[in-house]
Amino acid sequence: VQHQTEKTTRILYHYWLSPQSRSVRLVLAEKNLSFDLILEYFWERKHEFMILNPAGEVPVLKESSGIILSGYNVISEYLEEVYPDKNLIGHHPAARAEIRRLREWFDQKFNKEVTLNLVFEKTIKRHLNQGSPSSSAIRAGKTNIHYHLDYIGYLTQRRNWLAGSEFSLADITAAAHLSCLDYLGDVPWNEHNEAKTWYARVKSRPSFRSILEDQMPGLPPYKDYKNLDF
Amino acid sequence: VQHQTEKTTRILYHYWLSPQSRSVRLVLAEKNLSFDLILEYFWERKHEFMILNPAGEVPVLKESSGIILSGYNVISEYLEEVYPDKNLIGHHPAARAEIRRLREWFDQKFNKEVTLNLVFEKTIKRHLNQGSPSSSAIRAGKTNIHYHLDYIGYLTQRRNWLAGSEFSLADITAAAHLSCLDYLGDVPWNEHNEAKTWYARVKSRPSFRSILEDQMPGLPPYKDYKNLDF
Repeated sequence: VQHQTEKTTRILYHYWLSPQSRSVRLVLAEKNLSFDLILEYFWERKHEFMILNPAGEVPVLKESSGIILSGYNVISEYLEEVYPDKNLIGHHPAARAEIRRLREWFDQKFNKEVTLNLVFEKTIKRHLNQGSPSSSAIRAGKTNIHYHLDYIGYLTQRRNWLAGSEFSLADITAAAHLSCLDYLGDVPWNEHNEAKTWYARVKSRPSFRSILEDQMPGLPPYKDYKNLDF
Repeated sequence: VQHQTEKTTRILYHYWLSPQSRSVRLVLAEKNLSFDLILEYFWERKHEFMILNPAGEVPVLKESSGIILSGYNVISEYLEEVYPDKNLIGHHPAARAEIRRLREWFDQKFNKEVTLNLVFEKTIKRHLNQGSPSSSAIRAGKTNIHYHLDYIGYLTQRRNWLAGSEFSLADITAAAHLSCLDYLGDVPWNEHNEAKTWYARVKSRPSFRSILEDQMPGLPPYKDYKNLDF
């Protein structure tokens, strides 16, 4: 009897325009960790998926060890602890606090004020049969994004990357949200030069390549989405 | 010239019925770290406070070293790193992932489905001049809380505390949210015996005492709020 080595695989359950899913893809790519993607229509609340994550949300990461991790915060902290060679969370408690503060800023505040108003309204909402996009939500999202792009400009005038001298989870989180909006053509880059320069630097990292190749069936990306010189 | 030792102090900017503020108070008390409380009406967006936390939210912790930490996740991770003697976040990556998952569950999912629908509608909303409480929001909160109390029961039937054998940030986060609702008399404890037994155990911890002494001007607590035998 010959033993075959079973090829165990890391699996990421994701959705294309979920910024939290994209953040995890970027973290894994920055750390050179290979993974397979499984597209999950999480709003269908399939039984098999609800067992993995009773919160019913993407991303969910199944490590080859079998451990199941739900949610971007949980996954990013875990990957930092287990694969620390490429550090994305800072080296000292104060630096980590600033990186985590900005991760929260984009994943909570930006998400509520911008991402949900635009990405959710324009895409996921129709799958939930919740009617057509709300024009007041879209207007709010398009107004709010300016303050956040100004904030990115403010930070990058003072620092090399958003949270300090090193590329970190703060940059990943902000870029993941903006990449979803950019896919829809909803980022007014030309009114925010510093933010645009920062995003161009993130966009040209090797970890970003697979994100730029994304093609949603029936919803092609905005013309400049892949363009490194936008 | 005699030198006087300056007594530097840790300051927590908080709001009474902010579950995130209560969570930080509990973490500090569990770790035996002394602090002064400053009540912050964060919705007034006072300039001095916006400088501390541009997100304009409580809690904000000013350490005696001068470092400023914003938000419960950031603060709790920082305190675990700097004051690890009393561990509240687990000892291994997998255990920490489960504790963080449940911290997120209560601070994001429970917050959105229950806390905001009841605490925000009944208290903070009037300070924002956003009108009277929405009866549909309150109805939603009162319905949703049952699923979460069942989930606490499910977890505590299998584990000593919510995330495992040790008392952790998962218990603190869940109890902080429930204590705000309990202050308003909005927790149907008698329909959820396992959750009630778990909460009675949390409530009797020394770290919980100051929470039970809270008295908001003009809004006294529900009759059983302090009662350890409720």
